Amino acid sequence: MNQLVLASRNPGKVVELRRILEASGIYVDLLGMEDFPEVPDVRETGATFMENALLKARAVYEATGLVSVADDSGLTVEALNGMPGILSARWAGRHGDDKANLDLVLAQLADVAEARRGAAFVCAAAAVGRSDHVFAEGSIEGRLLREPRGSNGFGYDPIFVPTGYDRTTAEMSADEKDAISHRGEAFRALASQLITLLDAP
Amino acid sequence: MNQLVLASRNPGKVVELRRILEASGIYVDLLGMEDFPEVPDVRETGATFMENALLKARAVYEATGLVSVADDSGLTVEALNGMPGILSARWAGRHGDDKANLDLVLAQLADVAEARRGAAFVCAAAAVGRSDHVFAEGSIEGRLLREPRGSNGFGYDPIFVPTGYDRTTAEMSADEKDAISHRGEAFRALASQLITLLDAP
Repeated sequence: MNQLVLASRNPGKVVELRRILEASGIYVDLLGMEDFPEVPDVRETGATFMENALLKARAVYEATGLVSVADDSGLTVEALNGMPGILSARWAGRHGDDKANLDLVLAQLADVAEARRGAAFVCAAAAVGRSDHVFAEGSIEGRLLREPRGSNGFGYDPIFVPTGYDRTTAEMSADEKDAISHRGEAFRALASQLITLLDAP
Repeated sequence: MNQLVLASRNPGKVVELRRILEASGIYVDLLGMEDFPEVPDVRETGATFMENALLKARAVYEATGLVSVADDSGLTVEALNGMPGILSARWAGRHGDDKANLDLVLAQLADVAEARRGAAFVCAAAAVGRSDHVFAEGSIEGRLLREPRGSNGFGYDPIFVPTGYDRTTAEMSADEKDAISHRGEAFRALASQLITLLDAP
């Protein structure tokens, strides 16, 4: 069975990608970075989600020799000219402080009227193999609330309501969110192209 | 002598505008908002510097009946898609916390390389009279340091080095900064148009 590595230390992402690959008829031995503790984290120095996804996938391919998948994603806010964008995970200054990041966006948008509270979650996914790479994007549009609601998900989920819904993505089950999420869309679009990399000699 | 109001509670701005007007040959009785303590502050709900400048000038004209000048200005950072922009004074969440705002921009740009550390100070100025309004913009381009330097000025001055200089605007004298600043440029361009409002019957 072909082996594939996801450049992520998040076991939830590995499970999600495995589920999406199987739904696409792709059966592989999917590994995560916990299977390669010696491979260092890649600094995300790109200027776009896609540059960061490619940087990570390429670095893990070079370290492992296995076809490598990576994603980079974040929230783009209309009233912030598309930021936090690639800085979503460290918007308040420290990496991964979800509550500080969310509180800062709410404070920055305190005087922003409903009509300008549009936002989107965006995900870029890339896979790198011996001779080629493929990539795909996904997004989900919505609007930002003034107060958090819900305790599922992570990051900015408690203030994000997808267009056509009245609940935040933090008030949805994991399955429900996966079905409409930016990452699900990007991984599904990537899966359909992966076969070219896995079959490469 | 004609009376003119600057929609600002900052006495330094009143002094600066008076100096610029006189250099343009315009001698008026320039008042500030401390002369109108009963006029409430205007919420800056516009989406651009110019919308905010016009909102403020119009509100003060309507409250005082005098030709009113206002400005809105801020820092636009390339790697933040032009933000903090109109949110410059409250980037970290609370209005006017200069140190928190500056520290947050430095943290957000921690991994941003020299080539992408471009920024500009931008100022929009507007004047509103009985029958008309005029407006003008000014800007100064430069780049952002990784550590603050200098104690003059305010806001983001300690990390901003104008193009063609090796000192921050916080390491310049007030006169030196005024001569090249975004606000000076906008006020000078506005002054040349003010005469049409002051002479209106």
